[in-house]
Amino acid sequence: MEQEVHERSIDPATLAMLQKAKEEGVETAWERYEKQLPQCSFGQLGICCRNCNMGPCRIDPFGEEADKGICGATADIIVARNLLRSIAAGAAAHSDHARDSVLTFKKMSEGKAGSYKIKDTAKLLSLASEYGISSEGGSLEEVAAKLADILLLEFGKQDGHLLCTRRAPEPRLKLWAELGIEPRGIDREIVECMHRTHMGVDNNAVHILLQGLRTGLSDGWGGSMIATDIQDILFGTPQPRRSTVNLGVLSKDKVNVIVHGHEPILSEMIVEAAEDPELLELAKEKGAAGINVAGICCTGNETLMRHGTPIAGTFLQQELAVITGAVEAMVVDVQCVMPSLGELAGCYHTKFISTSSKADFPNTVRMEFHEDKAYETAKEIVRAAVENFPNRVPEKVTIPDEKQECMVGFSVEAILNALGGTPDPLIEAIKSGAIRGVGAVVGCNNVKVKHNYGHVNLVKELIKNNVLVVTTGCNAIACAEAGLLLPEASELAGDGLKAVCKALGIPPVLHMGSCVDISRILVLSSALANRLGVDISDLPAAGAAPEWMSEKAVSIGAYVVSSGVYTVLGTVPAVLGSQAVTSLLTEGLNDVVGASFAVEPDPIKAAGLMLEHIDGKREALGLITGKRKAMGLTSER
Amino acid sequence: MEQEVHERSIDPATLAMLQKAKEEGVETAWERYEKQLPQCSFGQLGICCRNCNMGPCRIDPFGEEADKGICGATADIIVARNLLRSIAAGAAAHSDHARDSVLTFKKMSEGKAGSYKIKDTAKLLSLASEYGISSEGGSLEEVAAKLADILLLEFGKQDGHLLCTRRAPEPRLKLWAELGIEPRGIDREIVECMHRTHMGVDNNAVHILLQGLRTGLSDGWGGSMIATDIQDILFGTPQPRRSTVNLGVLSKDKVNVIVHGHEPILSEMIVEAAEDPELLELAKEKGAAGINVAGICCTGNETLMRHGTPIAGTFLQQELAVITGAVEAMVVDVQCVMPSLGELAGCYHTKFISTSSKADFPNTVRMEFHEDKAYETAKEIVRAAVENFPNRVPEKVTIPDEKQECMVGFSVEAILNALGGTPDPLIEAIKSGAIRGVGAVVGCNNVKVKHNYGHVNLVKELIKNNVLVVTTGCNAIACAEAGLLLPEASELAGDGLKAVCKALGIPPVLHMGSCVDISRILVLSSALANRLGVDISDLPAAGAAPEWMSEKAVSIGAYVVSSGVYTVLGTVPAVLGSQAVTSLLTEGLNDVVGASFAVEPDPIKAAGLMLEHIDGKREALGLITGKRKAMGLTSER
Repeated sequence: MEQEVHERSIDPATLAMLQKAKEEGVETAWERYEKQLPQCSFGQLGICCRNCNMGPCRIDPFGEEADKGICGATADIIVARNLLRSIAAGAAAHSDHARDSVLTFKKMSEGKAGSYKIKDTAKLLSLASEYGISSEGGSLEEVAAKLADILLLEFGKQDGHLLCTRRAPEPRLKLWAELGIEPRGIDREIVECMHRTHMGVDNNAVHILLQGLRTGLSDGWGGSMIATDIQDILFGTPQPRRSTVNLGVLSKDKVNVIVHGHEPILSEMIVEAAEDPELLELAKEKGAAGINVAGICCTGNETLMRHGTPIAGTFLQQELAVITGAVEAMVVDVQCVMPSLGELAGCYHTKFISTSSKADFPNTVRMEFHEDKAYETAKEIVRAAVENFPNRVPEKVTIPDEKQECMVGFSVEAILNALGGTPDPLIEAIKSGAIRGVGAVVGCNNVKVKHNYGHVNLVKELIKNNVLVVTTGCNAIACAEAGLLLPEASELAGDGLKAVCKALGIPPVLHMGSCVDISRILVLSSALANRLGVDISDLPAAGAAPEWMSEKAVSIGAYVVSSGVYTVLGTVPAVLGSQAVTSLLTEGLNDVVGASFAVEPDPIKAAGLMLEHIDGKREALGLITGKRKAMGLTSER
Repeated sequence: MEQEVHERSIDPATLAMLQKAKEEGVETAWERYEKQLPQCSFGQLGICCRNCNMGPCRIDPFGEEADKGICGATADIIVARNLLRSIAAGAAAHSDHARDSVLTFKKMSEGKAGSYKIKDTAKLLSLASEYGISSEGGSLEEVAAKLADILLLEFGKQDGHLLCTRRAPEPRLKLWAELGIEPRGIDREIVECMHRTHMGVDNNAVHILLQGLRTGLSDGWGGSMIATDIQDILFGTPQPRRSTVNLGVLSKDKVNVIVHGHEPILSEMIVEAAEDPELLELAKEKGAAGINVAGICCTGNETLMRHGTPIAGTFLQQELAVITGAVEAMVVDVQCVMPSLGELAGCYHTKFISTSSKADFPNTVRMEFHEDKAYETAKEIVRAAVENFPNRVPEKVTIPDEKQECMVGFSVEAILNALGGTPDPLIEAIKSGAIRGVGAVVGCNNVKVKHNYGHVNLVKELIKNNVLVVTTGCNAIACAEAGLLLPEASELAGDGLKAVCKALGIPPVLHMGSCVDISRILVLSSALANRLGVDISDLPAAGAAPEWMSEKAVSIGAYVVSSGVYTVLGTVPAVLGSQAVTSLLTEGLNDVVGASFAVEPDPIKAAGLMLEHIDGKREALGLITGKRKAMGLTSER
């Protein structure tokens, strides 16, 4: 059993806390996973349908018994429908988050969201101009109000297409129009997914999947991109800064407040409230040396990127943070929050505080958060944490030593800045072969694979092979924990990449933000493609999600691939029950959108696939390939 | 085996075609159902979760193994989330259909939807006035354009609540506001359902279910009601008329065109095209005596209600229509269309024509239908059917004799008209006890129960007990097939109801339309409640869906119950895996919205539950109850 615990993660802090959990007899996601084994094969293959009450139906994968559901749906149809519902849920998560950002932004512009302000005026004006809003003569708030209205229309639009896709390169926009997958209103696409997957509506796998691509695009170039932009305006566009990560960031003598979930709307205010003199004074009274805010998952990435607030861990470390016994409050909003936290918090002194009107959990303290009283509620939340400090049980506290430095904050603006204002130095480095290509590595953790193993090893293999890595989400946190987000990590990089990193003083792995900030990667890709005069699918670039688990990742996969980026998945999506869907996703899509998926759980092999793809694209662009370089050649042909 | 076929339906035409199918070796939904047995119990209980790629997870219903999913979700959470996704899909189906109606209406107002016109000016003006649009000075098209814009906003609204709920009685509106379930933008509610059910978002069953009620309301009082209203304006508000139903309506010597699906936008044009002299001439050339259009499912109900176009059958008869060998074209749009039809059509000469940009099926002839060229496409479709007539294989043709007369067309307007302009005569009949109450019986077919058995027996039991029945969807078709939609059927009614029917010349079972027209039942309930000065939940009324199968029915259930109508389900929803959710739905909701669900597969017992509920409401209103009347008493207390 001991050995088993050691097989669960590559991170010593995680292993230490898993060991503590075992000794204290508390359950984590890993134990619950073991209890689920063997998992249902019909579900894993995607051939179980519950979309009407004649069912549930399932297809016999061996072709011996039922080859159709009661309505006549084949494995192809069932797999495609299930996939479309996942995309719809993922796109809904990102876009519903984005909607709230814009609604807060709108209220701010009307003076009704007291504590929120315009932090990045330049970005506001640039975005306003992008949407054709004149900023002459009006106040910033008036410009913001107009921008808010245009952006809200992107969600609610009933006719016509999204404006926000226009950042994509021309050839890509043309391709989407030709394919009929140019997204319309964001909400409309999601609703249409649910309509199409209703019993007796869309029953053609290709037709269904095209709607999946369209919906994905309404997330990546729509909801997610809008969320990123508005959050930058409200909270500041990230700039390079240093911070620390892993469970060791929890403080032995300060009040520890964890912010977990996805929306900076909440975490920004918590970070501010934690510096409130009144609460710092109260903390002192309660015997604490101060108030320490640390993040988990993407709300953590948001505050990390903008304030350097430390991060306590990735998705699979959320329970472990509580198990340290040192967390006074676990404050959550939406997405990727385990409902197990309530019961777990009850085994320690931790207060599990839920704040979103959209999300409640078992055994939480409800402190609902609304933008008009944001700071007041944030103060109440932090106060509850401070007041809980005396309840900490010293003999139950073990904070792991692991606390890793990192450099973060690589928004597109920051990257361009580091490059001297244009993408040209990066393009030159790519052309020369110093940088072989760009790898975008993102995504979650998943108990099905060893925690952080896929993330860290894939990224290490890429940088070793001179691939510059851009990262977001839990991959970014995993890389940070492994020390890869430091300029010093360029020592692990190939010679070409190492030289570039040293020259620019940047890490070989650039943290670009939270999961919605994959939109930043799209913008960067678009800038590179435009500068080269090609489409995104022509770039020597590839994506990967080595440990993905959420439906948001499915939507991300849909938009990344339909934006032209070849993407390698480390865990198997529930599609293998349909040969047609599997082959469409892994091959057929190449002829449709110029990119496809691959599935490869082994991170070294996954990196190999990405390198092969990158080399192919280099060759097509007439750039020197790694293979020819290895042969001592300095140019292509 | 022969006996088994006989157990599948109470309808002789259906049994005859099932026998033919067997002899010809073709497969129907019933054979596919048998191949699915035993169905997965986890799915049936609602305790299987596939909402992230750590899963699939399932809860051990016996409490011996896993009691939580990997994230920590309990059976309560999983059941509630699955239910919410079903409601979202159902609401999406209705509302996406409604959106297309409004978009067509808008195009019509701009002169861009050639073949569509304003058919019911009075309804247009009344609706415009309801939405505060002045019709003075403007053309009808201008009024229509303004109305279209307001209605489109109901779908896309990003802030504030729906206007279309205002038809509900005051106390009901107040209750929804108090509960926080007043619906906001229709699309937004559906998107929020998908967000909330994403991994790690809403994990409180009650919280989740309240969102389900809100989303349901955005369907019933929103999408569905808008669809009904706009379709009435474009195609005419139904008025009482006679027609015929069942497979016997197919013609031996005419070209048979089946319209199947849900949107009158298509079927209206097909009905018109079938009367085109050019095509009638072509039919003659091809040796046919004419062109016969018949409906299946709700698109059939739409044309039946407005034109008296015959109906060939219910949901479970769609395959049987093809099996007659007499169908030249099966023309479909969206919802409840079995993908099996393609393969089946290949066994006969039938052309399976799919028309919606949202829905394709295996082995169809694609003839995509767009409003700007609606009539042209409809003509092409009918032409394809006519040209297929010579391919009919006489020895494969068997048209059952069953062809039942019916009286249909009971829109709220038609009912009020029949009552002399006000609901008062109905209210007086209810007060006197002549009519004990109103039963709304609706919904699908489901292979899990004997075809039409639940529908017909439940309705017969209700009218026998003096309950006036209003019906829509496949229940209406089943009742029509059983002869219950005729004034003569009042002979089967109790004395009180019989007398009322005879006096008014109406059937004891009033066909109010398609499934979206359940909104008409809401409007009628509201009118009765308002006239009595009470809430809908105070009315001596109850609902039932004896053979429901689709997710639309789940959404309907959500809005009907949260509108205050006690509802009995004849097939078991996938919720029994959670005692908390089950008890909330069957009991707890009474304290929340003043109504709840019951599950009772036996139609006689289901009628008993409805009668008991109706009597309870009568008693509360101080009206004489059935029990006291039976005791010879003529007043209450």
